[in-house]
Amino acid sequence: MSQESLKSLVEANAYFYETFARGDADVMKTLWAEREDITCIHPGWGAVTGRDAVIRSWEMVLENQPNIRCGRPEGFLVGDVGYVICLEELGEGRLVATNLFILEDNHWKLIHHQAGVTRPADNDPVSGTHPIH
Amino acid sequence: MSQESLKSLVEANAYFYETFARGDADVMKTLWAEREDITCIHPGWGAVTGRDAVIRSWEMVLENQPNIRCGRPEGFLVGDVGYVICLEELGEGRLVATNLFILEDNHWKLIHHQAGVTRPADNDPVSGTHPIH
Repeated sequence: MSQESLKSLVEANAYFYETFARGDADVMKTLWAEREDITCIHPGWGAVTGRDAVIRSWEMVLENQPNIRCGRPEGFLVGDVGYVICLEELGEGRLVATNLFILEDNHWKLIHHQAGVTRPADNDPVSGTHPIH
Repeated sequence: MSQESLKSLVEANAYFYETFARGDADVMKTLWAEREDITCIHPGWGAVTGRDAVIRSWEMVLENQPNIRCGRPEGFLVGDVGYVICLEELGEGRLVATNLFILEDNHWKLIHHQAGVTRPADNDPVSGTHPIH
């Protein structure tokens, strides 16, 4: 895959967060892959697996009309999938997320999302922090 | 890919956690892909990107000799990669993780790992909980 794929991957990720911030459950549904299993780990939840449960989980999440903004996205192409790591800037804090995509009919579609707590400031991703493990 | 690939994917994930629990930094290094970018999000950390930084982060994590056990792994094959969602059972709590793998010379190698807090009990992954988003 090409630099163009990487660009469209990061754009798909941005559109996911725009949809997220708008609380648009109808569009959110269309951003997820239809030909693959899909899964999701919302922060503080257990894993959600299967299309129906994942879509339902998003309806619940979007009801809260989250004040969310994607920060510092980094995209990676791996074989025929791609993933983006980014921050989720919320009014009251920030999370860090992994978003896994696959190309379906030339459109990047989500397969899996995990978001979790990160520390308040992370100019340097490793130093000055201690693992929770 | 086949059921055999799925079996070997979940086995590779189990071996990752055995290595993790043994605190074996030398073996851990060999479990990560060499031909792809690798990335990692330890719980509470920011994203760690690039082989050197990821390997160094594991050396730091493994110094603590974590009491960790993989619970309820579920594997998914997507194109030419695979990922496993599982619990990380720790002495004092549990996390939920995503582990993304690719086949290199017929061995599943890690490309990305994210672990984060989950709630204490999750017999039902969706109901009875509220999103943090």
